[in-house]
Amino acid sequence: MSNDAPLTEVPAHLRTAVDTAKQKVADLHAELPRWELVVWTAGNVSERVRNDQGEDLLVIKPSGVSYDDITAEAMVVCDLDGNLVEGDRSPSSDTAAHAYVYAHMPEVGGVVHTHSTYATAWAARGEEIPCVLTMMADEFGGPIPVGPFAIIGDDSIGRGIVETLRGSRSKAVLMKNHGPFTIGGDAKGAVKAAVLCEEVARAVHVSRQLGEPLPIEQQHVDSLYERYQNVYGQR
Amino acid sequence: MSNDAPLTEVPAHLRTAVDTAKQKVADLHAELPRWELVVWTAGNVSERVRNDQGEDLLVIKPSGVSYDDITAEAMVVCDLDGNLVEGDRSPSSDTAAHAYVYAHMPEVGGVVHTHSTYATAWAARGEEIPCVLTMMADEFGGPIPVGPFAIIGDDSIGRGIVETLRGSRSKAVLMKNHGPFTIGGDAKGAVKAAVLCEEVARAVHVSRQLGEPLPIEQQHVDSLYERYQNVYGQR
Amino acid sequence: MSNDAPLTEVPAHLRTAVDTAKQKVADLHAELPRWELVVWTAGNVSERVRNDQGEDLLVIKPSGVSYDDITAEAMVVCDLDGNLVEGDRSPSSDTAAHAYVYAHMPEVGGVVHTHSTYATAWAARGEEIPCVLTMMADEFGGPIPVGPFAIIGDDSIGRGIVETLRGSRSKAVLMKNHGPFTIGGDAKGAVKAAVLCEEVARAVHVSRQLGEPLPIEQQHVDSLYERYQNVYGQR
Amino acid sequence: MSNDAPLTEVPAHLRTAVDTAKQKVADLHAELPRWELVVWTAGNVSERVRNDQGEDLLVIKPSGVSYDDITAEAMVVCDLDGNLVEGDRSPSSDTAAHAYVYAHMPEVGGVVHTHSTYATAWAARGEEIPCVLTMMADEFGGPIPVGPFAIIGDDSIGRGIVETLRGSRSKAVLMKNHGPFTIGGDAKGAVKAAVLCEEVARAVHVSRQLGEPLPIEQQHVDSLYERYQNVYGQR
Repeated sequence: MSNDAPLTEVPAHLRTAVDTAKQKVADLHAELPRWELVVWTAGNVSERVRNDQGEDLLVIKPSGVSYDDITAEAMVVCDLDGNLVEGDRSPSSDTAAHAYVYAHMPEVGGVVHTHSTYATAWAARGEEIPCVLTMMADEFGGPIPVGPFAIIGDDSIGRGIVETLRGSRSKAVLMKNHGPFTIGGDAKGAVKAAVLCEEVARAVHVSRQLGEPLPIEQQHVDSLYERYQNVYGQR
Repeated sequence: MSNDAPLTEVPAHLRTAVDTAKQKVADLHAELPRWELVVWTAGNVSERVRNDQGEDLLVIKPSGVSYDDITAEAMVVCDLDGNLVEGDRSPSSDTAAHAYVYAHMPEVGGVVHTHSTYATAWAARGEEIPCVLTMMADEFGGPIPVGPFAIIGDDSIGRGIVETLRGSRSKAVLMKNHGPFTIGGDAKGAVKAAVLCEEVARAVHVSRQLGEPLPIEQQHVDSLYERYQNVYGQR
Repeated sequence: MSNDAPLTEVPAHLRTAVDTAKQKVADLHAELPRWELVVWTAGNVSERVRNDQGEDLLVIKPSGVSYDDITAEAMVVCDLDGNLVEGDRSPSSDTAAHAYVYAHMPEVGGVVHTHSTYATAWAARGEEIPCVLTMMADEFGGPIPVGPFAIIGDDSIGRGIVETLRGSRSKAVLMKNHGPFTIGGDAKGAVKAAVLCEEVARAVHVSRQLGEPLPIEQQHVDSLYERYQNVYGQR
Repeated sequence: MSNDAPLTEVPAHLRTAVDTAKQKVADLHAELPRWELVVWTAGNVSERVRNDQGEDLLVIKPSGVSYDDITAEAMVVCDLDGNLVEGDRSPSSDTAAHAYVYAHMPEVGGVVHTHSTYATAWAARGEEIPCVLTMMADEFGGPIPVGPFAIIGDDSIGRGIVETLRGSRSKAVLMKNHGPFTIGGDAKGAVKAAVLCEEVARAVHVSRQLGEPLPIEQQHVDSLYERYQNVYGQR
């Protein structure tokens, strides 16, 4: 990713930005059990720390840590090759996937991974979620696509995410037999996408159990997406 | 809706009524996550403030605000054309639909909108919920009907709600591909209808997964509805 | 039920027993939302107060009261004809059914009614829950039976419960199109039966969604029931 | 199991180890309702206390005790024949099964039993859970197998668990018509397996409701299992 030697500490000019990100990322982890997206220690949230004097960093949860033990101080900092830059504990075993996304999608500022039940159920069948809800058109602008089966431990999960989401409106991808990854402009946006991904996965699943949901015409999907991305919320 | 110039502030004689409604509406929003009817910032509750010296007002949640940040002070006030009369933030993007209902159904004092999972699943199929539970006969007096597909941003959602519920016993309508809207004599009544709408949507869904629920004879539906509307609760 | 004039107050010799029952019944109501058996104000728990100098009484929740507002003081006392003996509020609209059970099943000391989702789903199909789980054999000694469709407002619900449960091992009955009623030696036992009724209704439903659960041989059902009723728990 | 007379008290050299285990086992019981694996008093966690001067002991929950009343002091101590060694209350009625596992699988340090809904639903059909999720490959190394139907009260549950899990990668067994038992290196590991067993039981169930999940190739199952057992978490 870089020809320079890996960083061995957080550069002084990023201290405040890193500490702010650690607090945000720690707080946002609480949203995962709150919305029942994870069990035990599964799932992770990361945020990019932009560095205009060099390579960006990312802040992420350590591996295998209980949701009760998550504090800002416990969060770890890595470079975009996934090397540990700061922290007492090993980074999440999904760090390589997060890092790959940041390295290859410059507009992404936050990444979330869960095994939320309904999204994972679609992923296990390798089936995209059709866009049959206005909430889906609003947030995802169309179907939620499926990414390839990929084994943890090399670049293949990160590559699968990037190849699926690049050029897509969707902020979520269902990695085959695995579970959803979501992206956002920041960590909060990626958490929101994870929450809504599971909600639409569940509602469309339930709807299809008793028949076929009605499709939404493409022109309506487009206008819902356009409005929601540009008008919704406080400016 | 009115030939007068829009109000630019809450009239003095409505101050107390507006402040009371703000507190009620803020408190009632807590019922939506409590009964698992909403995720993230989705969903909204409003209440009408009657004005015997002019046009009525409505109190509603601002757009895109977290359920953790809802206070009486954060609530906004609009007229029945959906114009902001008081508040620091943009009103909910569903305000036009709420306002249309108040303007065209004078007996309605509260409106609630959610994307609750099971009700939304019926809405995605465009299928009414058949009246096969005594709880449904009690509260809704028959099936819960489906309203048209309507795009946000003009009167079409409001019109769809009014055309479906006017002359119906049902306090709930399933807007196609979208989700439920409920009405009540006040905001609390509309929240109750939203809670019961999701519960019957879920129970009838589950029942139909393994066979066909037994119909309830119309005369029994009628007598259950009559009793519940007139006898139940404290007088 | 009795030729005497109805009681107009709690007899002095029952004061302590009634107050104890009020506290127990109030506390046990908290178990209903805790185990997700009820929404809004639905559901009720009652307990018999035995009176060796006359007719028994029952303690029950008032009608249409929020689970947040339940206190021992708010509970009401009725005789076994369902007449109010003590309390500021109307008794639950299900009081006549509870009273009928106490009047006709002397061994019953507690009654619970809910609209818990999965039990109600079986009730809507009018289908008994087959005994395919050891937990069901333990607690219910066989299938959970269905009671008749009955309209609220006269004896018909109470009669339906008694006719179904008298002579049955089951502590639960699924009233058709309505929901479960459960009985116990005291109110706590009836609440436990309500919790387990919903759990087995859910687990057997889920099991049957993907095939046919294996039956348990009658001799094993018998021996599980025998052991659980006589050995389980602390003596 | 042993030719010596049964222990009548905790040997002095095990006092600290037993007290530590009591605290751990009491705390871990809170994870069962937290992850919605149990209702009412069902379910139990135990941990082995190793004794290099004689037979091992186990610490377990008393029978029929509410999850609100679980404290370290309330836990009971038994030998590996299931005899009570210390405690004021009867041990869990599943103690014989736990004891049999410890006596016959020396590597096991913790055992958990629940009736969690989805795992129990698979158990009621007597059907193993196929390995179609990476999370399953990680934790269980393949399908979750079914154990025989066994009646409580003798060795048959314990034997069924041991015969099914000995030589298997799986830390969970679905006892037919009954529910899951899980094992671990300590009680926490067995609780983790119980949480993940229910999660994969649910996600695979949901996935199969709308089609057939994609299999994971055996070589990928093997490499996921290998990595997770050896690399995941903090060392």
